[in-house]
Amino acid sequence: MSTLVGGIEGGGTKFVCAVGDNEKNIIARTKFLTLSPEETLPKIFDFFDTYQISSMCIGSFGPIDIDKASSTYGYVTNTPKLSWKRFNFLGAMKQRYKVPFVWTTDVNIAAYGEYSLGAGKGYRNVLYVTIGTGVGVGYVHHDILYKGYNHPEAGHLFLHKRKNDDFEGVCPYHNDCIEGLVSGPALEKRTGKEGRLLKQDDPVWNIEAYYLAQTCMDYSLTFSPDLIILGGGVMKQRQLFPLIRSNLKKLVNNYVQFPELNDYIVPTKLGDDSGIIGSLLLARNKLNN
Amino acid sequence: MSTLVGGIEGGGTKFVCAVGDNEKNIIARTKFLTLSPEETLPKIFDFFDTYQISSMCIGSFGPIDIDKASSTYGYVTNTPKLSWKRFNFLGAMKQRYKVPFVWTTDVNIAAYGEYSLGAGKGYRNVLYVTIGTGVGVGYVHHDILYKGYNHPEAGHLFLHKRKNDDFEGVCPYHNDCIEGLVSGPALEKRTGKEGRLLKQDDPVWNIEAYYLAQTCMDYSLTFSPDLIILGGGVMKQRQLFPLIRSNLKKLVNNYVQFPELNDYIVPTKLGDDSGIIGSLLLARNKLNN
Repeated sequence: MSTLVGGIEGGGTKFVCAVGDNEKNIIARTKFLTLSPEETLPKIFDFFDTYQISSMCIGSFGPIDIDKASSTYGYVTNTPKLSWKRFNFLGAMKQRYKVPFVWTTDVNIAAYGEYSLGAGKGYRNVLYVTIGTGVGVGYVHHDILYKGYNHPEAGHLFLHKRKNDDFEGVCPYHNDCIEGLVSGPALEKRTGKEGRLLKQDDPVWNIEAYYLAQTCMDYSLTFSPDLIILGGGVMKQRQLFPLIRSNLKKLVNNYVQFPELNDYIVPTKLGDDSGIIGSLLLARNKLNN
Repeated sequence: MSTLVGGIEGGGTKFVCAVGDNEKNIIARTKFLTLSPEETLPKIFDFFDTYQISSMCIGSFGPIDIDKASSTYGYVTNTPKLSWKRFNFLGAMKQRYKVPFVWTTDVNIAAYGEYSLGAGKGYRNVLYVTIGTGVGVGYVHHDILYKGYNHPEAGHLFLHKRKNDDFEGVCPYHNDCIEGLVSGPALEKRTGKEGRLLKQDDPVWNIEAYYLAQTCMDYSLTFSPDLIILGGGVMKQRQLFPLIRSNLKKLVNNYVQFPELNDYIVPTKLGDDSGIIGSLLLARNKLNN
């Protein structure tokens, strides 16, 4: 009989829950909107209660507390979603399921999925960036999830504004930080239209690419990953990739060496499944350790 | 008899060479200006030739190539100092001394020195930033020197310009990147005076602190270190520390949690010796491995 593991991708917009078997197959999955914990938890329980799960991984939107020595380990610490602020997510899950848990960010599970089976396969330092409702960064460094004092929150760096760009940004904490300038809501506020409704040659994509190139430059000069995988709703606009690469080349101005840019700034291979696949793999690893 | 090790701190402005004994004492040291390799190498040789050295560490200004699989491993790759550009520094040293070598950046040896015996003692994730002629970042992550595809070059990120600040910056590669805005030469160009000659309450320190706070924010949201140690000539202006902490608090706007800021943004403990002490310790470690 197969040993089953459970994976959760708890994004800011939607939750995905899945059950995986020994052969890395997803044998069941479900998806629902991220509402309050009181509304969301019962849906998670409903789904997993019908399976005999041996380990679980939660990839949660954040910031979250991943410091095991902290009194708020397992909590969502800060978020514009007030009902989740200081909610003990891991604690609530552990109370229901007496199994080993992996507790990390939603972007880390996506980074791990792409590292294991996607665009990052074969590399040891894989940076995954999601550009959607928000901007988040997951990072596998030397084959494990990167952790310092806490997890990176690298979607909130400030950027050099483009000449004559007086767009004030949409981040509720920092206005025109990366997330405030390049997220889906930023695009929509800038143009009055959802990004997916804009023409491929709309001039806004040049602005978007300029800021995303600066974002990639920041991550290159700090993390120095083997490659940067760009995912999330906004990156479905594939015309952005060549624009980001050419802007990056110009900005860095040959100061540091990169791998060939076509292999360095790349789309996801697992698409919308990077996160849930990574979550299941991490849950499986937990079982084997 | 003591086993001797050699340490080099090859900075952009000056070189320090030292010999250390078993008891971590520096038994000899010398210092000279960084000239061309043809002028500098003989001085290094003159100094070390008189000792029986068992291992050495070179901490070099950069960017340098630290990828052992690369054909230019051991080279200084890019630098405004044209005589060092693509110079095989490690190769030249190895030809002279048949001992095990550690090859890393000048800022990494300083980070390692502070991590081992200075302000970072007791922490596992220690970020060291030098703000002097240039801006460089060394990082000890989980007790070892951080390495991705290459070493960080985090002094060259772009920053959000302060309102009405039209200073064009001094970085020869990027104009107003961090180094271009906050280095010693930037201060001098902005004010017409060397930083050390400016009054403690000169308004330029507020500008400097604003950009350094943004720099610390960038490093916090990416590396997430346990603390950030600020060194180099500019940081001898101790009035900057409280200004940086208060600007950082304002910029981050409670989005992520930091350790107490007085313990998080701190000066070096080893002063100008962080680098050479770290270099000797790394050379000693090499011997023990």
